[in-house]
Amino acid sequence: MLIDRVHFSRETTSPEDAGWRAAAANLSDLAAMGATPLGITVGLGLPSNITVNWVERLYQGMTECLQKFSTPIVGGDIVRSPVITLAITAFGQADPSFIIRRATAQVGDAIVVTGYHGASRAGLELLLDPESGQQLNVAEKSALIQAHQRPNPRLDVLPILEEILAAADFPVLTGMDSSDGLADAVVQICRSSHLGAVLEYRKIPLPSVFPYWLSGDKTREYVLYGGEDFELVLCLPQELASILVERLGKDAAIIGTILQEPKVILHDEQGTFPDLLLHLNHGFQHFSH
Amino acid sequence: MLIDRVHFSRETTSPEDAGWRAAAANLSDLAAMGATPLGITVGLGLPSNITVNWVERLYQGMTECLQKFSTPIVGGDIVRSPVITLAITAFGQADPSFIIRRATAQVGDAIVVTGYHGASRAGLELLLDPESGQQLNVAEKSALIQAHQRPNPRLDVLPILEEILAAADFPVLTGMDSSDGLADAVVQICRSSHLGAVLEYRKIPLPSVFPYWLSGDKTREYVLYGGEDFELVLCLPQELASILVERLGKDAAIIGTILQEPKVILHDEQGTFPDLLLHLNHGFQHFSH
Repeated sequence: MLIDRVHFSRETTSPEDAGWRAAAANLSDLAAMGATPLGITVGLGLPSNITVNWVERLYQGMTECLQKFSTPIVGGDIVRSPVITLAITAFGQADPSFIIRRATAQVGDAIVVTGYHGASRAGLELLLDPESGQQLNVAEKSALIQAHQRPNPRLDVLPILEEILAAADFPVLTGMDSSDGLADAVVQICRSSHLGAVLEYRKIPLPSVFPYWLSGDKTREYVLYGGEDFELVLCLPQELASILVERLGKDAAIIGTILQEPKVILHDEQGTFPDLLLHLNHGFQHFSH
Repeated sequence: MLIDRVHFSRETTSPEDAGWRAAAANLSDLAAMGATPLGITVGLGLPSNITVNWVERLYQGMTECLQKFSTPIVGGDIVRSPVITLAITAFGQADPSFIIRRATAQVGDAIVVTGYHGASRAGLELLLDPESGQQLNVAEKSALIQAHQRPNPRLDVLPILEEILAAADFPVLTGMDSSDGLADAVVQICRSSHLGAVLEYRKIPLPSVFPYWLSGDKTREYVLYGGEDFELVLCLPQELASILVERLGKDAAIIGTILQEPKVILHDEQGTFPDLLLHLNHGFQHFSH
């Protein structure tokens, strides 16, 4: 459910991008559970001053994303509302032996992330403050802005993951997407599983421009708490995690391990900054801007 | 999708009733398609000044209705919004040979309505204007108010209807619910089917108190355009319509016939008022108050 001025802003987000991101967020929720999309319903609340053109452009962005993942709009509702409201429900289908849950992490599981974290938040910063990122060239800026405006749900990872797990007779698989931030995902998995984790900060893939653009604090904030990268955070046996990372190449990494003790520790092997207990509340804060 | 001050008012509707009616409207949408409910998702947008108590009472009303029809809440979302927004998606299951469509009416089909029409609108009137309905006793008032506050989706009609149709090898069945008014339902079915209809006004079941409370004009307005009665409007072969009405007893009536000519005519056999062509636009207006 997306609300104007809470989840997006009509001033800084084009209707096409708002539509794409709404569809992507919902498809990412399916990917996070190991489900393949069947269709979505779209509930739309609109103020009387909205133009037909705006609505058409919203649907344009939404269908561009949906078509990429062969997902139809199968129903919905349009009503009058004082604030633009987009309420999407996504329907998916999952193999019962391949449902990704949050509460099933096992001690010793490797923690794998797909893609880069912090890119979407960095793209937003470039949009909010046109003076920022002067060290970046046009292509670098554009890639980060693209990550924010046109995120991709990681449905492409599912068949690869399912193939690897099938060969190992489907061991327990745990995970979620990182829509509310990487830290939030790890904390939620640990809380649900009544376990803890250690994260190796230096192993988390981040956009290559961060080191010469952002301070260490800013980098950590974007990577851990930025949100809206819509990547997957998965917990699975070490040997399978290695196979997965090999298969996905640069697009994934093992960033930590599930531990018995119920706390989440961020560890920097180079000692640049001290071990850091992730603040659970910070991890739970929703991305707001 | 229900929006505060558009579809309900926090001033005149208790949270329990708002919850019940939201659930009922969604289950009625399933009944209108011949589907049995499997579950609903609830998206909730809430302003920061709303109390936890209000939300709990909303869910209380919603679950009271859902439990009556054995329907679980299977997911949802809660977000911040400047206006109370309730976005429900209902999931149902239908036998492929028993799906009720709007566009399949056949010339000669009987038009059947379940229940009474105008009751919900009359109940709303009693709530909006406490001075109204002085000719009615407490039980009569209470029944109409109940019809408005706690409408029942007509899922109970489906097994009876399916049994009758199965015995006739499933002829084409057409219909929808009357949530936006009886006239709207008939007009929508006719438009979708590219056909017309004649309605016998005197055959439409209405609350027995209307004749000694309301003027003829008011009665017609409530019965035809009132809305939110959540009854079923069905088109099916005459002989099966008769069996259905016999099975449902006082709770249903044949009120008209589907015609070739694409217009909807309201006919009064007693000549009290002239034949009346239903205004298609009026029939399409959403119930607003």
